[in-house]
Amino acid sequence: MTVLLSSYITERQHIVNKSLTSFVEQTNIPTTLKESMLYSLEAGGKRIRPVLMMASCESFGGDYNSVMTVALALEMIHTYSLIHDDLPAMDDDNFRRGKPTNHRKFDEATAILAGDGLLTLSFKAIASDPQLSAEQKSFLVRELAQASGPEGMVGGQILDLQAEHMETALHELEQIHRLKTGQLIKFAIISGAYIGGANKEQLQALESFADYTGLIFQVQDDILDVSGDEQLLGKPIGSDETNFKSTFPKLLGLSGAIEQKQMYVQKAKAALHSAGLENSLLDELTDYLSNRDY
Amino acid sequence: MTVLLSSYITERQHIVNKSLTSFVEQTNIPTTLKESMLYSLEAGGKRIRPVLMMASCESFGGDYNSVMTVALALEMIHTYSLIHDDLPAMDDDNFRRGKPTNHRKFDEATAILAGDGLLTLSFKAIASDPQLSAEQKSFLVRELAQASGPEGMVGGQILDLQAEHMETALHELEQIHRLKTGQLIKFAIISGAYIGGANKEQLQALESFADYTGLIFQVQDDILDVSGDEQLLGKPIGSDETNFKSTFPKLLGLSGAIEQKQMYVQKAKAALHSAGLENSLLDELTDYLSNRDY
Repeated sequence: MTVLLSSYITERQHIVNKSLTSFVEQTNIPTTLKESMLYSLEAGGKRIRPVLMMASCESFGGDYNSVMTVALALEMIHTYSLIHDDLPAMDDDNFRRGKPTNHRKFDEATAILAGDGLLTLSFKAIASDPQLSAEQKSFLVRELAQASGPEGMVGGQILDLQAEHMETALHELEQIHRLKTGQLIKFAIISGAYIGGANKEQLQALESFADYTGLIFQVQDDILDVSGDEQLLGKPIGSDETNFKSTFPKLLGLSGAIEQKQMYVQKAKAALHSAGLENSLLDELTDYLSNRDY
Repeated sequence: MTVLLSSYITERQHIVNKSLTSFVEQTNIPTTLKESMLYSLEAGGKRIRPVLMMASCESFGGDYNSVMTVALALEMIHTYSLIHDDLPAMDDDNFRRGKPTNHRKFDEATAILAGDGLLTLSFKAIASDPQLSAEQKSFLVRELAQASGPEGMVGGQILDLQAEHMETALHELEQIHRLKTGQLIKFAIISGAYIGGANKEQLQALESFADYTGLIFQVQDDILDVSGDEQLLGKPIGSDETNFKSTFPKLLGLSGAIEQKQMYVQKAKAALHSAGLENSLLDELTDYLSNRDY
């Protein structure tokens, strides 16, 4: 990773962290619920989705500040999905990013409500953003709800649960991850470009890039779960196997998964080229996502 | 209840039931998740919120069809809140409306995801409704997210859980219910009037009516839980006491709660008078909500 990209990411992460806290602080939410929402928001994620959204916006000449509220909304939805995924009835995880999961720190009822609260607040954030026109707000709410709802991420989550203990084919695994992880990453890229001023053709060309980027992200996640550094990841290695998850390394072996990822990277870069964005920030971010170690 | 009102309610309930099913049937949602969402949507609620929204729209000369999608969205949010409230970590209820609760019929993970799915789908429904302008969509998404989110219903739910086993004062109990039940009922009335063409002054005058209507609904709920008919209610009597809930009869006694409700009815009717809607459908519905036996 270049020094320039590294400092770009760190700076953007910092801005997102500050903005998330200040956004939620300003709301009128009962104390325990607000604490629980902030606890998970402030647990120090990589902010990959907001960073991708900003980079996508900037690649089309937009100002990253113009996507800030939408980026916060997306990160709130990502965070809610982690809180609910960690619940005893789902993956039953005790730690995330080196800290107790929300229901371990608070209790299950609070964690369920904190998730519900973050999900709902994200739509209010977009619909209240004075920087966006009414047209933009309806487009973004529709696309975000589509990406994160039962036809998107929530649908992917149930398919993922159903695939536990099952043999899955590569195309089934890809379909699960297109929904479960891919849809939010796609929304980050497409909405950033949309707000940044991309035209219809450019948005269409980005669809394929966004699709492969989601898959790259997920394969790397699976690879890190078998060969990553527990300290860096903030969670135990091997949790996918313990949870009988369908993963790329399980299906293809570790070296097969790495090859598969490299194929996705090539395809993502080709799509970026078609969109006229070779050598852009998005190009550099693709390598970063593919090679990240946490 | 007049024959006219009774057939109005029945007819509207029927339309809402049909539309809810057909709306969800048309989505591209993984089978089990869709079944679980439809199971709770079709469990036969009273559809009070959609009926209020339609009546409010019609009171200002609007066509009830123009609020249909928003009414479905509101009912989806109400239904999601029931699914999550019934979970073992929350009220731990096994039956609702005479049928097993969602997590008993399916499993906890599916119930959590069905709730998340319904919540998210409701915002997509509004943002995709071709009958609404972009301005109307942003207004309605913002108001619905505010009413149902951590500053509204979800906030009320955590306060309600915290109030279990506690002594609450009347103003605290009112505050819990203003958030937990009142906000969605208020949204039904205000958004119906907004789409029906009410002007700013009329919307403002309705705020107070909507506020009291929410309280009437909740006191009657509490009253039915101590003195209602289990057959009609489809759930056991006394569950509030079993769950150590704060209720109006617990605080004021049964006759005190009835008096309190009658006071709310008087205030609601006075507010309706100020809005120029005495003798309207909303006036009749106030009596219906106050006297309903299930």
